[in-house]
Amino acid sequence: MSAIPEEFLKQTARMSDEVTRPFTNSKKIYIEGSRPDIRVPMREISQAVTHSDSGVEENPPVTVYDTSGPYTDPAVKIDLLKGMPDVRTAWIEERNDTEILSGPTSAFGRQRQNAPELARLRFEHIRTPRRAQAGKNVSQMHYARQGIITPEMEYVAIRENCRLQELRQDPRYTKLLKQHPGEPWGANLPDEITPEFVRDEVARGRAIIPANINHPELEPMIIGRNFRVKINTNIGNSAVTSSIEEEVEKMVWSARWGGDTLMDLSTGKNIHETREWILRNAPMPIGTVPIYQALEKVDGKAEELTWEIFKDTLIEQAEQGVDYFTIHAGVLLRYVPLTAERLTGIVSRGGSIMAKWCLAHHQENFLYTHFDEICAIMKAYDVSFSLGDGLRPGCLADANDAAQFGELETLGELTQIAWRHDVQVMIEGPGHVPLQMVKENVDKELDDCFEAPFYTLGPLVTDIAPGYDHITSGIGAANIGWYGTAMLCYVTPKEHLGLPNKQDVRDGIITYKIAAHAADLAKGFPGVQLRDNALSKARFEFRWEDQFNLGFDPEKAREFHDQTMPKESHKVAHFCSMCGPNFCSMKITQDVRDFAAKQGVSEQEALQKGMEEKAVEFKKTGAEIYQKA
Amino acid sequence: MSAIPEEFLKQTARMSDEVTRPFTNSKKIYIEGSRPDIRVPMREISQAVTHSDSGVEENPPVTVYDTSGPYTDPAVKIDLLKGMPDVRTAWIEERNDTEILSGPTSAFGRQRQNAPELARLRFEHIRTPRRAQAGKNVSQMHYARQGIITPEMEYVAIRENCRLQELRQDPRYTKLLKQHPGEPWGANLPDEITPEFVRDEVARGRAIIPANINHPELEPMIIGRNFRVKINTNIGNSAVTSSIEEEVEKMVWSARWGGDTLMDLSTGKNIHETREWILRNAPMPIGTVPIYQALEKVDGKAEELTWEIFKDTLIEQAEQGVDYFTIHAGVLLRYVPLTAERLTGIVSRGGSIMAKWCLAHHQENFLYTHFDEICAIMKAYDVSFSLGDGLRPGCLADANDAAQFGELETLGELTQIAWRHDVQVMIEGPGHVPLQMVKENVDKELDDCFEAPFYTLGPLVTDIAPGYDHITSGIGAANIGWYGTAMLCYVTPKEHLGLPNKQDVRDGIITYKIAAHAADLAKGFPGVQLRDNALSKARFEFRWEDQFNLGFDPEKAREFHDQTMPKESHKVAHFCSMCGPNFCSMKITQDVRDFAAKQGVSEQEALQKGMEEKAVEFKKTGAEIYQKA
Repeated sequence: MSAIPEEFLKQTARMSDEVTRPFTNSKKIYIEGSRPDIRVPMREISQAVTHSDSGVEENPPVTVYDTSGPYTDPAVKIDLLKGMPDVRTAWIEERNDTEILSGPTSAFGRQRQNAPELARLRFEHIRTPRRAQAGKNVSQMHYARQGIITPEMEYVAIRENCRLQELRQDPRYTKLLKQHPGEPWGANLPDEITPEFVRDEVARGRAIIPANINHPELEPMIIGRNFRVKINTNIGNSAVTSSIEEEVEKMVWSARWGGDTLMDLSTGKNIHETREWILRNAPMPIGTVPIYQALEKVDGKAEELTWEIFKDTLIEQAEQGVDYFTIHAGVLLRYVPLTAERLTGIVSRGGSIMAKWCLAHHQENFLYTHFDEICAIMKAYDVSFSLGDGLRPGCLADANDAAQFGELETLGELTQIAWRHDVQVMIEGPGHVPLQMVKENVDKELDDCFEAPFYTLGPLVTDIAPGYDHITSGIGAANIGWYGTAMLCYVTPKEHLGLPNKQDVRDGIITYKIAAHAADLAKGFPGVQLRDNALSKARFEFRWEDQFNLGFDPEKAREFHDQTMPKESHKVAHFCSMCGPNFCSMKITQDVRDFAAKQGVSEQEALQKGMEEKAVEFKKTGAEIYQKA
Repeated sequence: MSAIPEEFLKQTARMSDEVTRPFTNSKKIYIEGSRPDIRVPMREISQAVTHSDSGVEENPPVTVYDTSGPYTDPAVKIDLLKGMPDVRTAWIEERNDTEILSGPTSAFGRQRQNAPELARLRFEHIRTPRRAQAGKNVSQMHYARQGIITPEMEYVAIRENCRLQELRQDPRYTKLLKQHPGEPWGANLPDEITPEFVRDEVARGRAIIPANINHPELEPMIIGRNFRVKINTNIGNSAVTSSIEEEVEKMVWSARWGGDTLMDLSTGKNIHETREWILRNAPMPIGTVPIYQALEKVDGKAEELTWEIFKDTLIEQAEQGVDYFTIHAGVLLRYVPLTAERLTGIVSRGGSIMAKWCLAHHQENFLYTHFDEICAIMKAYDVSFSLGDGLRPGCLADANDAAQFGELETLGELTQIAWRHDVQVMIEGPGHVPLQMVKENVDKELDDCFEAPFYTLGPLVTDIAPGYDHITSGIGAANIGWYGTAMLCYVTPKEHLGLPNKQDVRDGIITYKIAAHAADLAKGFPGVQLRDNALSKARFEFRWEDQFNLGFDPEKAREFHDQTMPKESHKVAHFCSMCGPNFCSMKITQDVRDFAAKQGVSEQEALQKGMEEKAVEFKKTGAEIYQKA
């Protein structure tokens, strides 16, 4: 422990309070699968009863998808210095197709392991890496294509359903489960997600389960158009600022608020050690952009990058447990000049690095020419491709141009190569795109890339709101998610301006939870409207605590409510702060109903019969309907 | 002055600093029309030059639509106690169809005028009201239908164009004016908005110019599907909290950030006096919901409301200068029972008040039965209708149901009655609607209400994010604006939870400016992409100050940037805080361009000829491309 910097321990302490505090009236539950070691975490939100003249009505608990990992389970002792509990090792071992290596096989991995000056920073409990036995392929896609349903597949099936089949049998949920028909734009959303459906989607390449065999702490999740829309968050220190402990805390913070996956985009010092800390404590899939680290290894001189340096970096990171790699293999020499007349040229870091390399050597992108070798590494650890959009537009003006769409076609070609190796693939997308041009991006991706999952940044639908780009991009994200994008990469309010702090990360995540949920609702994903219905009922019945607790951010909702109505009594008040006690529309509506109910007839019938004398009676009681302020 | 409470004076002082401070590098300009007293305010944002190896390039100023009124004009002395400068009186008088009354003609207006205890609160320079001469109709629609182009119409034509015709002649703007074709969904967006086009749209009822003859301080604006999408903001004290000075400050604050119109939804004490303060200082159209005040007059007992009390309230407010009235005349007795089975019943305050009245008396809504008389009052002052959606859905579950759409059809019927009186009309819309059901709302409104301008709240596309409903609704707003909604009523983060403070108002407004602009871009409104292009060019060239100043909220952008990179030198740094000096994609892209430029050939040609020896040279210079951190 003494090896760990003091500030880090402090940070850890702080974290367990603010970052791991359970949500009010929420309970961590685990749904067991076909075997006891498949335990899928969910969050159950309990509700208060409803009191009315007709008696007391129970409001059943609402189960929600839970990304927060063991951090919100009071039964788990969190120790960031030791790392998270192991979820998958037994599953991996029983497949009997991997071997434990004696140590890192990458040159850089060995170098970092043996550098004494790094002891201060190094995670203490590093596992020796695991790799596929010679000639074996350990990718989930490979198993799926053999017809094998892995525990990972069963796990995500249970997770996606969120107990829907169980709730459908429970009369307490009948009304809450009402949902509008969606417009899925060709997505195929089954009534129940079975392990076999998961297997089939993974086999077809229409969904991926990013799950490196060296990341056993992972709680498996799935990314695909026919599943819940997911969101990715980014963290990463840079030359300018940030530190290991900040990054680990941001990762846990991201899990708390709903991040489904996380990319470590660190570009500063000690990337290797930062990554180890993050992976050993991360319940979600971790992605990276290996070219960033490779560039550090050549002091930022793009033209000095080589296939050997890059290959060593891939192995280094794969053996740490990175679940997906962004690889900009679609930035071809012939596309680079197409960006010369753009308003903002090439804005993807990876894209510009490769473009510069191509021009410097006047050779084809080595990621493209070595793609088969890359696939060979990916399948030995089950790292998924996130084929990078190095030529994505950096502003509205450059949207949907020849460079962007040329690269997208090449990504489709690479997808087929990866699939020949049974390697999982998703495709990255823009960027900055005006609203009327968003759908074309999805349609073209589904077409050119054979329905491989689409993973987009935003897109921002306008360029003129720096400081609010979580919102400019949240609008594009909701739409592109609806049209068929499988995962949305979040954007924080600091985009284009600075590095996000914890509050920015939270704002970005909640904005993207909203976008992803809006997309699920619009597509008609089964059961997703239940939470909206439950919250709306709570709102209508002035169950303030339930309204807070059913939302994406109960703490913010409570804080806002208390700014106007601080008293505890207000939380049970049958009025809201907008109108005050004498003047609340929901109150009036309830009065109208109660009145009709008192007459023992529905308003409908009452009106049909005509209700003159009832009207008189109503006038008499009417005055009392208003509470005094 | 002594009559004014001390706190108010303090507030005024504070206001002139924070609220009226001009934006950096922005200049207030006025475009003169066909006569010297038509002076249309706009904001001109100047930009720095671009330095490159090829020399110095000028970046021309960007002119933007300006809602901030005289408050941001250093040449105007602001004195809230005296009210704003007069814009329209000469135009109104020369039409020679109005008369100055001896005083308020409403009983309530007279009563408030003569109550000595109100001296403390009363605005000191109240004008005697103006009304149409007997038998005259002073509505903009009436003039339009006579073929008359009023100064108000010319004013809005100039305002909508934002100097586009002038810029098109200026070669400095040629590249910046490039814009993607839009998808207008049937809107008719001319290349230039002429006064005649404005007249024709107003005559057809497809657009309105809310402009009460008793609100001469107004800077005219237009609301219609074929013009820029507008946003409305709401303020209003309530029984629970808030005061006159807070409301006036929120109004000025709203103008500063971009509110096009403003509704005063006050429901507490001294509504009449608050409204006078707001109107005398408001450059934008002011709307109200008269039934709120009428209800106060009967101590909140809906069943005691009468046509006479309501009529007196209409006249009271019309003579103060309110520009549009929300009137819930579409809440018919037969629709009320259709809400009984809803999850959240009736959530519109006005709707629930009228529903209760209908049930109590078992009579038809008196706003419906007296609609012709209401029209007679509206045309005597040119108050526009905002036909209220009293039965709008309060949650996703209730969206697009029989009650909502039944009322919408009745609003269409009332629109035709109003148009027979040449009274201007817009139609209010929901509310809470999932993304896939949004377009149906616009299509049905255009159809049922004969293209009368649609004015919607949000809609919220999910119910589960209390504390973030500016975002849940901003997503719906961008979409519904794109489909053809003319004005978007903003929602703040406090929606459903509490009353918005100034920060909430700012967040709500910027979110809705984003939604409205995204809709303009998506529809393809001529010239609107210019600001996006200018900001993107500034961003690409590291002109940080220009990037801040061209955004919707320069102060927030600057603040965020400074949190990561506080030094002034950073504002000219050729790198951004996300990547640091050694690692910036825009930098690399520029290097790629500069390199190609140095060769005196475009990258395209260079590559076509093949550029082996150039590549070598590039390798030599490459290392220097990166600045040291």
